[in-house]
Amino acid sequence: MKHSNEIAIPALLEVDDQVLSRFGALIGKAGISRVVLFFGDGIRHLCEPQIMESLKEQPRLEVLDNRDVLDNSLESITSTAFSLPAHTEAVVGIGGGKALDIAKYTAFLNGLPFISVPTSVAHDGFASSGCSLYVQDRRTSVPARMPYGILVDLELIRSSPVQFLYSGLGDIVSKIPAVIDWRFEESHGLTRVNDFAVMMAKKSVNSIVRMPYTDIREFFFIKEIVDSLMLSGIAMEIAGSSAPASGSEHLISHALDQLVEKPQLHGIQVGVAAYLMCLVQEHRVERVRKFLTGTGFFDFVATLGMKREDFEQAIELAPSIKPSRRTYLHLPEMRDKALRLLRSDETLQRILS
Amino acid sequence: MKHSNEIAIPALLEVDDQVLSRFGALIGKAGISRVVLFFGDGIRHLCEPQIMESLKEQPRLEVLDNRDVLDNSLESITSTAFSLPAHTEAVVGIGGGKALDIAKYTAFLNGLPFISVPTSVAHDGFASSGCSLYVQDRRTSVPARMPYGILVDLELIRSSPVQFLYSGLGDIVSKIPAVIDWRFEESHGLTRVNDFAVMMAKKSVNSIVRMPYTDIREFFFIKEIVDSLMLSGIAMEIAGSSAPASGSEHLISHALDQLVEKPQLHGIQVGVAAYLMCLVQEHRVERVRKFLTGTGFFDFVATLGMKREDFEQAIELAPSIKPSRRTYLHLPEMRDKALRLLRSDETLQRILS
Amino acid sequence: MKHSNEIAIPALLEVDDQVLSRFGALIGKAGISRVVLFFGDGIRHLCEPQIMESLKEQPRLEVLDNRDVLDNSLESITSTAFSLPAHTEAVVGIGGGKALDIAKYTAFLNGLPFISVPTSVAHDGFASSGCSLYVQDRRTSVPARMPYGILVDLELIRSSPVQFLYSGLGDIVSKIPAVIDWRFEESHGLTRVNDFAVMMAKKSVNSIVRMPYTDIREFFFIKEIVDSLMLSGIAMEIAGSSAPASGSEHLISHALDQLVEKPQLHGIQVGVAAYLMCLVQEHRVERVRKFLTGTGFFDFVATLGMKREDFEQAIELAPSIKPSRRTYLHLPEMRDKALRLLRSDETLQRILS
Amino acid sequence: MKHSNEIAIPALLEVDDQVLSRFGALIGKAGISRVVLFFGDGIRHLCEPQIMESLKEQPRLEVLDNRDVLDNSLESITSTAFSLPAHTEAVVGIGGGKALDIAKYTAFLNGLPFISVPTSVAHDGFASSGCSLYVQDRRTSVPARMPYGILVDLELIRSSPVQFLYSGLGDIVSKIPAVIDWRFEESHGLTRVNDFAVMMAKKSVNSIVRMPYTDIREFFFIKEIVDSLMLSGIAMEIAGSSAPASGSEHLISHALDQLVEKPQLHGIQVGVAAYLMCLVQEHRVERVRKFLTGTGFFDFVATLGMKREDFEQAIELAPSIKPSRRTYLHLPEMRDKALRLLRSDETLQRILS
Repeated sequence: MKHSNEIAIPALLEVDDQVLSRFGALIGKAGISRVVLFFGDGIRHLCEPQIMESLKEQPRLEVLDNRDVLDNSLESITSTAFSLPAHTEAVVGIGGGKALDIAKYTAFLNGLPFISVPTSVAHDGFASSGCSLYVQDRRTSVPARMPYGILVDLELIRSSPVQFLYSGLGDIVSKIPAVIDWRFEESHGLTRVNDFAVMMAKKSVNSIVRMPYTDIREFFFIKEIVDSLMLSGIAMEIAGSSAPASGSEHLISHALDQLVEKPQLHGIQVGVAAYLMCLVQEHRVERVRKFLTGTGFFDFVATLGMKREDFEQAIELAPSIKPSRRTYLHLPEMRDKALRLLRSDETLQRILS
Repeated sequence: MKHSNEIAIPALLEVDDQVLSRFGALIGKAGISRVVLFFGDGIRHLCEPQIMESLKEQPRLEVLDNRDVLDNSLESITSTAFSLPAHTEAVVGIGGGKALDIAKYTAFLNGLPFISVPTSVAHDGFASSGCSLYVQDRRTSVPARMPYGILVDLELIRSSPVQFLYSGLGDIVSKIPAVIDWRFEESHGLTRVNDFAVMMAKKSVNSIVRMPYTDIREFFFIKEIVDSLMLSGIAMEIAGSSAPASGSEHLISHALDQLVEKPQLHGIQVGVAAYLMCLVQEHRVERVRKFLTGTGFFDFVATLGMKREDFEQAIELAPSIKPSRRTYLHLPEMRDKALRLLRSDETLQRILS
Repeated sequence: MKHSNEIAIPALLEVDDQVLSRFGALIGKAGISRVVLFFGDGIRHLCEPQIMESLKEQPRLEVLDNRDVLDNSLESITSTAFSLPAHTEAVVGIGGGKALDIAKYTAFLNGLPFISVPTSVAHDGFASSGCSLYVQDRRTSVPARMPYGILVDLELIRSSPVQFLYSGLGDIVSKIPAVIDWRFEESHGLTRVNDFAVMMAKKSVNSIVRMPYTDIREFFFIKEIVDSLMLSGIAMEIAGSSAPASGSEHLISHALDQLVEKPQLHGIQVGVAAYLMCLVQEHRVERVRKFLTGTGFFDFVATLGMKREDFEQAIELAPSIKPSRRTYLHLPEMRDKALRLLRSDETLQRILS
Repeated sequence: MKHSNEIAIPALLEVDDQVLSRFGALIGKAGISRVVLFFGDGIRHLCEPQIMESLKEQPRLEVLDNRDVLDNSLESITSTAFSLPAHTEAVVGIGGGKALDIAKYTAFLNGLPFISVPTSVAHDGFASSGCSLYVQDRRTSVPARMPYGILVDLELIRSSPVQFLYSGLGDIVSKIPAVIDWRFEESHGLTRVNDFAVMMAKKSVNSIVRMPYTDIREFFFIKEIVDSLMLSGIAMEIAGSSAPASGSEHLISHALDQLVEKPQLHGIQVGVAAYLMCLVQEHRVERVRKFLTGTGFFDFVATLGMKREDFEQAIELAPSIKPSRRTYLHLPEMRDKALRLLRSDETLQRILS
């Protein structure tokens, strides 16, 4: 008889201003002496000087190697993963989603701790155990391990392009329809919902959607975004799957990735699709609309030229993306409803062209 | 090198209406066959019929023994703890805080899973790993284990006397000054704050304090109270101590327990003290005042006849309750400030006599 | 779906000569700064000087308190357990079984790591998660936690009275009939044998019973005794119960404890009973007889004046000690067989009076 | 403060005759419903009929897919790993080392439990968390996860070609020099020996080297081989590396793999090299020689035509195989000593040509 579930959470966490310039001290305090750094595309010039400066006061902390990483195909990662220098104790990923995934998976394959240093928070990947990689030319979610450490420099996040923040917000609200899809699947006997994961997923949204702010770039609001995305990572960890954070709205986004020549950021697509699915599920529509309107998310989306007909095709394609699931969109009548709403809802009319 | 922290979370969770009448099915689904039930004082007639009815459809689930429990002294618990029937697989506690603590500690001493069935949610004890017991006639916090299961019947909670709900609210807001005290201690080199625990503690408050409601007894608001108290339990589990949920405001409450002939409910005292400490720490005063006013907490407290002079004595006594800690109240100037605020703050003037 | 079982093993282990004089260095290397020492009866003068000397080179390691402990009743332990000094990080027990049990249980009640420093190895208690305490004047096995550290000074063990070594040997061979009893119980549908635990239990015996030696006090033989008793502790940890190490032979010993005015050491009684049960089970008799004869165990027992009629009564009483189990001795015909063998076996004739 | 180390051990273990024909029942009892089977080269006809027959009585257990696997290159494994059928709950590998490694790594990449069904026990891979794969055309040890289940059909093992048994014996004795190398490395400050892992590694050897037997194919002796190899897997799990089971003798074997056109089985090479290293380390030579002579290992090796000059080259090459380690063979004078012994030792003279 087990006494409880055991879940993994990061052992090292720092979410604050000037985290980069305390990088060395934070890693050192965790008892790690030899690291390899993976920089995302275009990130090195942004972060390396502060990191290297911070290492000067840590004579016992050694950077054994540092690499620029770009290719997040499984083939590319596995071809270099086993060439880490001997005695590497941790792999540090610094960048947006791609660099973090490459570093996270390299650490996983080597049985080493991974330290996540996101330069933007466009989705919950910086705080989750999964990776999104290209496997045989197909974007695929693969399991890895919860980061050992998460170091978020809020100044860096604040100065990242605004679309990343909106993408993060879109990813946060996606929990609302995702949880409904999960319960829907359970009611068909296809899965078992973990109520603790649901609770965490809900708290991750509820703690931010009513928060007052004057600017989404202000310190406390950005910190709340980071915290909410981390709670989302924990919810998935508890569930042992991405189900509490990824339902029909994610399927639409994955479908768009296949259909559209230049897809938008993951969380942007997911945010729009989440709003649509709330309409379909007739659940918390007002709250989501108010939040995405108030933060400027919808206004921003309106400038992107996303097309309604792409969403129409994505809705039709969505169920085949994960045929083994049973979300609302796996029912023909719900896809019809979604198509109708796509044309009738005023907000969607306004933001899609 | 560890890859992450491992924490224990409940494996079985149900927070809904009519949970009692599904008791048997829920326990059975968890694979447990033989249980012992501990009923709190006056609880049996309230819950036993539904529980027994629910067992009828579970022929493989056996209640080996059921006991009425009242005495939460360590002496009393240990004298009967090792007389559980052979083959007991889990201990179920049904009641308010005391019965849960007795059942939780009995399970802990026997290395058995504990299932928590709170009939009121006056504090976070139903979802935490600690117990509050009388040791040598002194109320003492002792470690035990995270519940294996938490089954909350929201109808039961809704029909519990309103002071229990207010007590729960008071316990929730106490995280706000508690976290400040914890960081204060760290700044003196006396402890190490776990940022993940802080994040959880904050999310537990932030997700409820701005939630709209028309009646604190309505389904979704009560569910949010339960969820927030559970997050608080997880925050303490991550911290490995009660620090993220218990600071100077808890010391005042413990002091009142010693000073006052008939102390109020834990969370009631803690809620008032939390508001006072927010004033002292000059941190989030408006938010806490607004929440405790809006929910009717302060109006309710005003009917209880709590005395300002008891609080004055409690402030003086507080640091000696846990001399090894270093909260704001461990500084003489902060105690002075608290005493002044006790007399000058309008709200406190109104609710204390 | 779980991927494997997780079991706890000691994080700190040292089995060698001169361990006491490296006590401070070993504790310090483990990152522990503040300890409380519990000395067994008559042990302080034997060990304190070396321990204190070893602490001199560890300026950051502080002994907050040290106590002489004697009373292993649950009442006595709980009455002082919660008065450990603030900031205690670990409880160290130094002594034979009783002091270790008291320290282990005190650590368990406080949620602190326990460090086991046995001065004799008369049974596997120094390396197991259980405790043997007096509860309501009855010797009772209660669960606690696997030691965090085990420090065995082999010189100390070597110079302990020879009966302790023989007791350790008796406890080791008891795994042989215990495992047979466990499988017997499983064949009656009363329990589920863990094959991994059985494998460990067997390896713990098999690695020593054929080992050559010239003197049971020689370094490598004593080390092997210590290692075998530790493997036995691990086997119980894997099983989640004492079943792989404690069957009908332990029931006879527990019965003797109740019947005889001055019982012999646990492992002495258990060793004789284990030999008897091997005869009853008709399993590995030759090997056990050869080992207990060759090591001088039987010759030593022959000097103790143990009485056959006490064993006769103990056999009759044994099943009632743990009525919920179903060992060979729970069958009347097996008790009869045991009684007959008690009178007919030559070795038993020789060693019992 | 951690209370102990947590290690993973298999949750399901069966080592007995006729395990294959109970395959379905054993998997079903573990609560697994949907599996994928990986058969090694030439294994399907040997095992499939019994397995399929055993599934007939398990209507709820479904084989979603079964594959013949041959190519243990990382590239090949990753190219198919993510095409497991939806809802796969466990991956079962049936075969010798290669098939087990492919199945184990596929399970690892998918975050699924792995069930190990070895058809021979030529080394400890069936019970360890590591895999030996070809990465960029180089044999590489990569971390994966401890098997969830180990099902060993002893009839199958008994009827496997004798060289596999001898290989298993060779792998068992390799712990003796490996532990000495590990301590040697520690004495140079390059690593930290885990004494618990050492104890397990030693017990794994000591429990078999003195065991009496009349035929190495007899039930109890083969069972002991299996158990010893499993303890070796646990020792590595505790250590978090292969160090307790793999030292200079493994480097010689790896070097032979590179130098010789048709290398012998891993454990055959390792066994000869282990004997040589015992001579070099002057440690337990007599015991190892007696065991490898008595079991017929040396006689068998003498028939293989292994060449002394290959060993000479392998000794020179060995340190460069793992330049970051510091075994005896990393010292020039020890390599010279090994070369001398290769020519002077009588046993080596006899078995090498």
